[in-house]
Amino acid sequence: VSPDQLQEYLYAQIPLSQAMAVRAVAVDVETVVLTAPLQPNINHQRTVFGGSACALATLAAWGLLYTRLQSEQKRADLVIQRNSMEFERPLAGRFFARAELDDPQRWSQFLDTLDRRGKARIRIVARLWQEEREIAARFSGDFVAVQARR
Amino acid sequence: VSPDQLQEYLYAQIPLSQAMAVRAVAVDVETVVLTAPLQPNINHQRTVFGGSACALATLAAWGLLYTRLQSEQKRADLVIQRNSMEFERPLAGRFFARAELDDPQRWSQFLDTLDRRGKARIRIVARLWQEEREIAARFSGDFVAVQARR
Repeated sequence: VSPDQLQEYLYAQIPLSQAMAVRAVAVDVETVVLTAPLQPNINHQRTVFGGSACALATLAAWGLLYTRLQSEQKRADLVIQRNSMEFERPLAGRFFARAELDDPQRWSQFLDTLDRRGKARIRIVARLWQEEREIAARFSGDFVAVQARR
Repeated sequence: VSPDQLQEYLYAQIPLSQAMAVRAVAVDVETVVLTAPLQPNINHQRTVFGGSACALATLAAWGLLYTRLQSEQKRADLVIQRNSMEFERPLAGRFFARAELDDPQRWSQFLDTLDRRGKARIRIVARLWQEEREIAARFSGDFVAVQARR
């Protein structure tokens, strides 16, 4: 999955990503980085609306899991089960979200469980920041993959 | 604050609320109910994108705190500090978020602390559901109010 392919997929399937003007910056099996400009995501304090930050992190986390499953040639539907975010400081410009597996060592167990039971859960984390600034928010999401029926 | 006033304020200040086609259904000091249609918030599974659900809940929670502070004639900037969401079942149509104080008895203590220290924290919860269906997701957010400088 290339950044352009992921971005096209998001725009086609999740129109909010287009309203947010999300761009895919980097996509591989280790990490997915998405970015969005301030303007369509601004709030009354001229900083990034918390809901936009949550949405960008969710898209990045979902994108990472999608990319990894594609690279393993697994077909699975992905459902988010829970998420949490900690906001440490405001984002006041173009912002980024970088998603990674919470525990890369759990990946093979996740695939085994998915094969064996047709369903498995995994945690993805994301960090959010603003250009040239330190981390501003942290996201954690638990996703359930359910093997797609043929 | 009437539903129309809250909706106008959201559309003017938080453009994502307009992209999501959010409408304010009920606004008082006890509860704020917002709704949004599926189409601008859809995902690849034809259900509500988790980021949209998170954004609607955040708007409802923020709207409740804003309404309560207005009714007390307090001017404060509101910042979200953390949030979490549990997704129990998919939302597959027009969806709603109802925000309430997590613990109404803490309100007077919150106002006291805001007056005394110029800053106070409070938790707002929201339930999400789809028309004529049971609760599909639960949100909890901690907001910090910071007294606005005159």
